[in-house]
Amino acid sequence: MTSTPRLSGLPQVEPLDQTLRDELQHIIDTKTKPPGSLGRLETLARQMGLIQRTTRPTVERPALIVFAGDHGIAAEGVSPYPQAVTAQMVANFLAGGAAVNALSRVAGIELEVVNAGIATPVPRTDGLVDIPVAAGTRNFAYEPAMTHDQALIAMQAGGARVRHHAALGSNVIGFGEMGIANTSAAACLMSRLCGVPIDECVGRGTGLDNAGLAKKRNVLAAALAHHDISNTPLDVLATFGGFEIAMMAGAYLAAAEARMTILVDGFIASSALLVADAIAPNVREYCVFAHASNEAGHRRMLDHFGALPLLSLDMRLGEGTGAALAVPLLRAASAFINEMASFESAGVATRDAP
Amino acid sequence: MTSTPRLSGLPQVEPLDQTLRDELQHIIDTKTKPPGSLGRLETLARQMGLIQRTTRPTVERPALIVFAGDHGIAAEGVSPYPQAVTAQMVANFLAGGAAVNALSRVAGIELEVVNAGIATPVPRTDGLVDIPVAAGTRNFAYEPAMTHDQALIAMQAGGARVRHHAALGSNVIGFGEMGIANTSAAACLMSRLCGVPIDECVGRGTGLDNAGLAKKRNVLAAALAHHDISNTPLDVLATFGGFEIAMMAGAYLAAAEARMTILVDGFIASSALLVADAIAPNVREYCVFAHASNEAGHRRMLDHFGALPLLSLDMRLGEGTGAALAVPLLRAASAFINEMASFESAGVATRDAP
Repeated sequence: MTSTPRLSGLPQVEPLDQTLRDELQHIIDTKTKPPGSLGRLETLARQMGLIQRTTRPTVERPALIVFAGDHGIAAEGVSPYPQAVTAQMVANFLAGGAAVNALSRVAGIELEVVNAGIATPVPRTDGLVDIPVAAGTRNFAYEPAMTHDQALIAMQAGGARVRHHAALGSNVIGFGEMGIANTSAAACLMSRLCGVPIDECVGRGTGLDNAGLAKKRNVLAAALAHHDISNTPLDVLATFGGFEIAMMAGAYLAAAEARMTILVDGFIASSALLVADAIAPNVREYCVFAHASNEAGHRRMLDHFGALPLLSLDMRLGEGTGAALAVPLLRAASAFINEMASFESAGVATRDAP
Repeated sequence: MTSTPRLSGLPQVEPLDQTLRDELQHIIDTKTKPPGSLGRLETLARQMGLIQRTTRPTVERPALIVFAGDHGIAAEGVSPYPQAVTAQMVANFLAGGAAVNALSRVAGIELEVVNAGIATPVPRTDGLVDIPVAAGTRNFAYEPAMTHDQALIAMQAGGARVRHHAALGSNVIGFGEMGIANTSAAACLMSRLCGVPIDECVGRGTGLDNAGLAKKRNVLAAALAHHDISNTPLDVLATFGGFEIAMMAGAYLAAAEARMTILVDGFIASSALLVADAIAPNVREYCVFAHASNEAGHRRMLDHFGALPLLSLDMRLGEGTGAALAVPLLRAASAFINEMASFESAGVATRDAP
């Protein structure tokens, strides 16, 4: 663990405070409904209460940060889309025309777009948080994607964006991403950090055909074999990661430190959580796994975290779209625990009454 | 089919107009995302477009009607809760303290509560639509729950409530229910209308223990054996149904006739849809199956409709709570199809571009 001293500047994540667990459970169980009948909403209400250290958890100013970055590995032809699409899609985010814009608007979510390291020019717009670490990572088929220092700088920058939103009053936050070829980076992170053969981590991404999928598997297997590194989180992140993934990893840690409820999106977002979780395993206690992506490998990543996703809607877009869809469910959980009457207050007979 | 002439006064349900299907699909496929990557949201947007006969489907004034009624079969001890809880819970709905109140408020849903036939007095409140068919059904262990005329009156009344909301501008509607012992009625409807043995239709309802479950199965098996009737929908509804279930059945037909998107809740709500679907099979084309209930038997009912539920949150409360949670997903579907840019309009390269 040579990297441990260098990670000492990262946020500290406390275990979830369990003091209020019994009180929260009693409140939930005495609402006017059969015990347990609100299922996952009850689990969410209890988790938010523990995170916020209150029996009256709320959803305040939910925020979604989309981190965008480019990947040197794109040069190997692992995506059917050209690299320029990263910058074009960021322009689309800034113009309000992408899926995550529509889903954030309709759910009342504050959306922020961060240039974590895009390879091609992005139009300068007021809406963009323009803090690139570099103009894309290096090609990890041949060399590490980034230096350890770049990885740490990116993690710190991601954490700073989270603290910005915490200061503005957000207590729920999700992270999305954009980056052509970033399913390749995520698959390599998964393979190393979960100890899973690369073929089980590789999926079609944005829509590879069978030949493209076979090529992607070969490229990534060769890249993994090329790098004889330790499996410490910082080594793995620096070797195969992306700047957007590194910023997300730091963002998770900062969000848990700030006791925010964290919405985990799909395959890429979960790969960044693998890094954060390897550094500070308590982080997962602050996480709500928003959805199961259709990208191959995501289910196995969820199993790694012991996670039950809230939604399974056959989505595989990224951008934070799955996280955005979970916000109304958090609001519903907060609404029932705060607003429902108890059997006693409503004068409703409990079971087995005469 | 002796009942067919007597059903002639019910709403007419046209097959879903498929004129815009190709145009809708083209719009969805040229949005700035990999084709199909928004999964079930894409299916929802297309279905709403077809129902509303527009390429710009909207969610307007979503409404939820909770129908409440009592069941004579409750006298056989098939529920752990006393019958008076139906009226007590309706009072709780009217005071705003039940789960469906909290979930409707937070999702911006118009909530209406209907007394379809409660056995015990309900406080008269402005909020209540007080149109009981009778003070609870008869005990179908010994005699039909209601007459054919009562079943038809209830169906017409349910339809009238839907037309009220359609006239106020609602284009999305869901139905919930409250009625002690109504899982027993629903299980018998399911057994007869789906041709499934009663043991596979019976679940724990609001929380029966093993002994209670065994007793419920025996009571219902005996009741089904007692009634040597045809399996026409009106006969089955009148023999085993409830006034709240009959009103819901009529409400489904009226909602489809009014070309509304219909949110189908859990086990009881789906049993009412079995009746409507047996009368007018086109009705299911207007339905969105909001969630999979944890009540045993619901999955098999969903299979009967060929339905994929949107949500699986381990809920088993009824009241329309599952339907309420689906409204934000319809809003998300409407948002993406109306607000997202196309590849062309956003200047984003499509796949396999150089």
